Amino acid sequence: MAEKNVIRALMVQTPSLPGNLGRVASAIGMMGGDIGEIETVQVGPTWTMRNIIVSCDSETHLQEVLETVRNLEGVILHAVSDDVLQAHEGGKIHMTSRLDIHSISDLRRVYTPGVAEVCREIEKDPEKARIYTSIGNSVAIVTDGTAILGLGDIGSVAGMPVMEGKAALFDRFVGISGIPILLNTKDPDEIVRTVKNIASGFGGILLEDIGSPHCFEVEERLKNELDIPVMHDDQHGTAVVTLAAVISACRSAGVDLKDASVGQIGLGAAGLAICRMCMAYGVSDVVGVDLSEDAKARLAQYGGAPVDSLPELMERCDIVIATTGVPGLIKKEWIRKGQVILSLSNPKPEIEPEEALAAGAAYAADGRSVNNVLGFPGIFRGVLNARSTEITPQMLTAAAEAIAACTKPGYLVPNPLNARVHQVVAEAVETVAHS
Amino acid sequence: MAEKNVIRALMVQTPSLPGNLGRVASAIGMMGGDIGEIETVQVGPTWTMRNIIVSCDSETHLQEVLETVRNLEGVILHAVSDDVLQAHEGGKIHMTSRLDIHSISDLRRVYTPGVAEVCREIEKDPEKARIYTSIGNSVAIVTDGTAILGLGDIGSVAGMPVMEGKAALFDRFVGISGIPILLNTKDPDEIVRTVKNIASGFGGILLEDIGSPHCFEVEERLKNELDIPVMHDDQHGTAVVTLAAVISACRSAGVDLKDASVGQIGLGAAGLAICRMCMAYGVSDVVGVDLSEDAKARLAQYGGAPVDSLPELMERCDIVIATTGVPGLIKKEWIRKGQVILSLSNPKPEIEPEEALAAGAAYAADGRSVNNVLGFPGIFRGVLNARSTEITPQMLTAAAEAIAACTKPGYLVPNPLNARVHQVVAEAVETVAHS
Repeated sequence: MAEKNVIRALMVQTPSLPGNLGRVASAIGMMGGDIGEIETVQVGPTWTMRNIIVSCDSETHLQEVLETVRNLEGVILHAVSDDVLQAHEGGKIHMTSRLDIHSISDLRRVYTPGVAEVCREIEKDPEKARIYTSIGNSVAIVTDGTAILGLGDIGSVAGMPVMEGKAALFDRFVGISGIPILLNTKDPDEIVRTVKNIASGFGGILLEDIGSPHCFEVEERLKNELDIPVMHDDQHGTAVVTLAAVISACRSAGVDLKDASVGQIGLGAAGLAICRMCMAYGVSDVVGVDLSEDAKARLAQYGGAPVDSLPELMERCDIVIATTGVPGLIKKEWIRKGQVILSLSNPKPEIEPEEALAAGAAYAADGRSVNNVLGFPGIFRGVLNARSTEITPQMLTAAAEAIAACTKPGYLVPNPLNARVHQVVAEAVETVAHS
Repeated sequence: MAEKNVIRALMVQTPSLPGNLGRVASAIGMMGGDIGEIETVQVGPTWTMRNIIVSCDSETHLQEVLETVRNLEGVILHAVSDDVLQAHEGGKIHMTSRLDIHSISDLRRVYTPGVAEVCREIEKDPEKARIYTSIGNSVAIVTDGTAILGLGDIGSVAGMPVMEGKAALFDRFVGISGIPILLNTKDPDEIVRTVKNIASGFGGILLEDIGSPHCFEVEERLKNELDIPVMHDDQHGTAVVTLAAVISACRSAGVDLKDASVGQIGLGAAGLAICRMCMAYGVSDVVGVDLSEDAKARLAQYGGAPVDSLPELMERCDIVIATTGVPGLIKKEWIRKGQVILSLSNPKPEIEPEEALAAGAAYAADGRSVNNVLGFPGIFRGVLNARSTEITPQMLTAAAEAIAACTKPGYLVPNPLNARVHQVVAEAVETVAHS
């Protein structure tokens, strides 16, 4: 998740002659910079000014890219601004009143004395809170800050931009009110206790960036002890999107997934959840490997088959999924002809897809497009619509199939900006919830 | 707070002749119904259809009003709808993304991978969370549901419409993001523990509708143990607005407040806080009476003078404030000539202002206009602007003075819909915070 996360806006002036933007773009690309949007800001008599968004791997990498642009003949780099930090100023979310308050009548309606009658309606019939409050459309986004992106245990406050990002996506994609809750504790008992103490204000709980292994206990207990849907996104959200990618990959490669042997390399929070999701989907042979014996024991406990070595897994499995974070872990000589290889770690995959294909893989992809944003919005929209009290494995596999159904042939997953995807996922989840 | 809280929209058709609306309005008024907005919905050839908002004391009262309207010659009551419940459908608040997400670049900016850099900035310097997240502009609105309006211990979920109302007012009046937190526990230890566990996601804590006496302990401990501003609105918010009303009343009556003797009848959460606020403002003699010995002991502990009987307080004090909820508690023969009487209980005051004036009071008012909405928005805007870690008595008295300064001569308090009031309060609080 940490790839190309130094994003800058370059204000670049070039001569107004064909080929000059190409020179700039080529120079940036040669240095490994990723170009995003390009906007023409001003056109002068002999020059053109453009704002070019460039993503780099690190600050050092950025400096190299800037130096290259500065050295281009006739090209002037006027300014470099931090587009991402600027976008975050003041935070990304705001709690907004859905009603106008322009008159004393408005005030009496939304506040005292009018509100008292609404309170009494809910007191008489607590189910009415779903109608007359935002509770049924709200999801708490809860983190203890122990596993923020790939950055590790940086604390929940430093993780707030991620939580706000999820809330922003909830709002924009499915109209859910997402409320970040930053925990000051990492103790599983205390996390469970705190979340239970505040849960009645929400229609669902999205656990986010909580580290392994305590994430397992926290999620399991909250699912058991609360009567609203609870999901740890780094486990099941990731697993849903990964299963969708696997389904698409198998379709591209002509492999029958349910009859195949699936091998998962790396049995952390995401890896174990991917195994469980494949089993729930109906894959008969789910194999896993990890350096940790505890992790392998957890897989066995859920019905998967741990193996002792990477080569053994590569030998046995038709489909291989890797989420280890270790670049180059998969050697090309291990690839079997016709295998499906999804090396999903970012920024660098366990094996480059080109290399895997050259070694005989039927299909290979890295994890750049496999993003949780395809899953959690629609999943929660679906369970909230259905007023479901839980998120079941059946709902999750239905979500994965819905995502795969929206994927164009040859692609691994659909474009998350396509609003239809989230709607289709929500409908699939809701249908299972009602069945 | 429970007066006239049955609010309905009446769809009324009258003949299009002058005087007919007057007949309807008079009939409603004669029955004690309060008329709010009147909107002309349709004008026919010989008739006019209007939507009339009417507030009644109870469901029974409403039925009497409706019956009277139905009996009017030539008038047709087409429909009665519950305007307040309709306004609350879906809840009153929504967590909104402040940024558009239309392109992959937008997604990379607000979410991964761009967001990682923002997280790292905050990890390096936690103060930057104030800049790059919504934390510094967010206030948690925390309730345990034990004292919702005048309705008592109806539970925090039934209190949600009040919390959402406060959040809506925060948004509309001062641009603060207010986040309702509904507690499942009434135990002070557990409340303190839970709020501390989630406090780092907020720039301030507004405690709301938490019952007495545990509200005192909860607020005191949270103020001591957290490094962000904490305020129990039912204590200090009410006290600020009451002090503002007292200042205005004294101005109208020509009484010097600081040299006067102030008597508070009723030493619950609000009453005690009013006493403390008067002392902080510089009133030399603050007297109180209550049926509870504990309440009187608390007053003494804060430096006030408890007395044993109501007549004793009435005899001694130049200014009398009553917040007991007991209609008609104050007998007119107790009123001294030149006294200022604020009988603030709703829906019925301790003594009707007209009666108090007839008995010789220099100024008398009830509590209909004394609404917390004049206080908390500006107070929190001020401390958040100043990045203050606490709300001090000096800030609160400054807020009260600012409210009084915005009050037109002869009025008790200003119109809360006047945005300038909240701005003036915020500036007053911020000035004290910076001094």
